[in-house]
Amino acid sequence: MAELTIIVSILAVYLYISTVTASQCSVNGLPLVRDISELHQDSYGRPGLSHITVAGSLMHGLKEVEIWLQTFAPGSRTPIHRHSCEEVFVVLKGSGTLYLSSNSHAKSPGKPEEFSIFSNSTFYIPVNDVHQLWNTNEKEDLQVLVVISRPPVKIFMYDDWLMPHTAAKLKFPYYWDEQCYQTTYKDEL
Amino acid sequence: MAELTIIVSILAVYLYISTVTASQCSVNGLPLVRDISELHQDSYGRPGLSHITVAGSLMHGLKEVEIWLQTFAPGSRTPIHRHSCEEVFVVLKGSGTLYLSSNSHAKSPGKPEEFSIFSNSTFYIPVNDVHQLWNTNEKEDLQVLVVISRPPVKIFMYDDWLMPHTAAKLKFPYYWDEQCYQTTYKDEL
Repeated sequence: MAELTIIVSILAVYLYISTVTASQCSVNGLPLVRDISELHQDSYGRPGLSHITVAGSLMHGLKEVEIWLQTFAPGSRTPIHRHSCEEVFVVLKGSGTLYLSSNSHAKSPGKPEEFSIFSNSTFYIPVNDVHQLWNTNEKEDLQVLVVISRPPVKIFMYDDWLMPHTAAKLKFPYYWDEQCYQTTYKDEL
Repeated sequence: MAELTIIVSILAVYLYISTVTASQCSVNGLPLVRDISELHQDSYGRPGLSHITVAGSLMHGLKEVEIWLQTFAPGSRTPIHRHSCEEVFVVLKGSGTLYLSSNSHAKSPGKPEEFSIFSNSTFYIPVNDVHQLWNTNEKEDLQVLVVISRPPVKIFMYDDWLMPHTAAKLKFPYYWDEQCYQTTYKDEL
């Protein structure tokens, strides 16, 4: 009897996980209008991050744009990285610092420029410019809406600003795309 | 003396208009981080609309995505229209109704489906689907952030839902792109 209980429990957990996976990655069968507060939210192992894919390529079947809602706790930040797509930020809450190096023709990014970002501001990351977003405000969360082109995103990560461009490590699929990449991605070429 | 005053006044107005035009449409020379509350906002002749191009193709030099912040007064609405690009909405405030016809293979859109949209919801318009956004809430503004691919947008407008697809009228450049199209657009082909 104890064994049956264990088997039923395992089956229940398996069914639950399958359902959650399917509902996060289903391209079809999703309601057209979705409540953002009910979408899957996760740190994807990155301390201080809350990420929601509002409208995604692998998750929802978009081909040309993808939208994220991200919240950074005080002190938290993105990796130093680049990607060959357009990226636009809209700051919904809080403030912080954008570090940006437009030095893609040199050997490494080098010392980045610093830009203050603030609530109700917008900024654009030029294609392939190395950058990092940092919640440098110790008291408040930084919340941004992020729009990228050419999804799913292919991110090259740097350990520091002196790392050569050629040594940057490709992370693909990116953390929040991993699960749906495994279940739905097809190469159409 | 009176003539000189008139000439100086005309010159001053001309210089002011030139400066405003240049500052709205300058692809280069804009600060990287921009305060959305200071961006140009206009109804572009559409009753009840407030439109801001947050990040634009003709205005700011983006090539793959464009972002608008739009506010619809109670009762106001978009035209019935279609465009061959992806479009994602994020509802920031208020509520309303989305009318959507996925009937692009028939002669005309026909009676659309109705979807309730609400604050903190998101929805996606499939490429070429005929649609209309309407602030059907009599008491509150509807504010949306709109993301499109393939800017600048080429919009085909319908007088009503029974108008044949082939009779829809192309409006290009669209109202908010007119000024910058004249001053900056170059065909790169």
